[in-house]
Amino acid sequence: MSDNCLFCRIARQEIPAHVIHEDDRVLAFLDIQPVRPGHTLVIPKQHYPYYEDMPADLAAHIVNLGQKLGRHMKRLYGVERVGFAFTGIHVAHAHAHIIPMHHVQDLTSTQYIEQQDLTFKMPPQPPQEALATVAAQLRGEMAGSS
Amino acid sequence: MSDNCLFCRIARQEIPAHVIHEDDRVLAFLDIQPVRPGHTLVIPKQHYPYYEDMPADLAAHIVNLGQKLGRHMKRLYGVERVGFAFTGIHVAHAHAHIIPMHHVQDLTSTQYIEQQDLTFKMPPQPPQEALATVAAQLRGEMAGSS
Repeated sequence: MSDNCLFCRIARQEIPAHVIHEDDRVLAFLDIQPVRPGHTLVIPKQHYPYYEDMPADLAAHIVNLGQKLGRHMKRLYGVERVGFAFTGIHVAHAHAHIIPMHHVQDLTSTQYIEQQDLTFKMPPQPPQEALATVAAQLRGEMAGSS
Repeated sequence: MSDNCLFCRIARQEIPAHVIHEDDRVLAFLDIQPVRPGHTLVIPKQHYPYYEDMPADLAAHIVNLGQKLGRHMKRLYGVERVGFAFTGIHVAHAHAHIIPMHHVQDLTSTQYIEQQDLTFKMPPQPPQEALATVAAQLRGEMAGSS
């Protein structure tokens, strides 16, 4: 599986990348289609399809590196916010996006959409009873195992 | 500061929430304007404006709870992906969004935009030299302190 995985190949240095940080467990490198300059991806060197598949300490290591990157990006780019996200799309090898946010919608929308005259809104608020039902289901599910 | 913070008030239970999980350090509750049913927010009980401001072990605890929520949401909602994101917007009290993704753009776009006929694209790829310059700057910045 990992033979054909783009990020496994980057982790093995079979494909070149603009590396920001490397240690024995993770690699941080620039997204070559950045939302903003400095847009970085952090991947585990070992193949896990999604963020929730990683061992807890590895996910922790990635979020902690993401915190460090966030602090440095704030200084380097003078932005108020840095976004951190596991979106699970594009490549099925867990990867965190760390993005200096020059606009509040940077992480979410503007650079991935062709239209430029977007109207942002909040999703509608469901009735309290509907939320209570969802919460009860999720709590029940969580009350099970891992 | 935290007197007027919406999420501090939710953490202190001054404002009701549909709680999914609570322990001594964090609270997980439903976003009342969910992208999808089950859209959950995880906050530290103590006030930190942004994710990178949190102590490393607290950020780790949140991402690990996000992994657990992700695994349970996959079972409960039958989705292939769950998104996990610190976006830093709306409320300046660090919060992770955990969202069952029924569509690859769920985390990022569709529910927060009025227009329904969006054309998704990838951002343009900058020249290699431009990426190399950005990478050198970020590495230089990272070579400093925390």
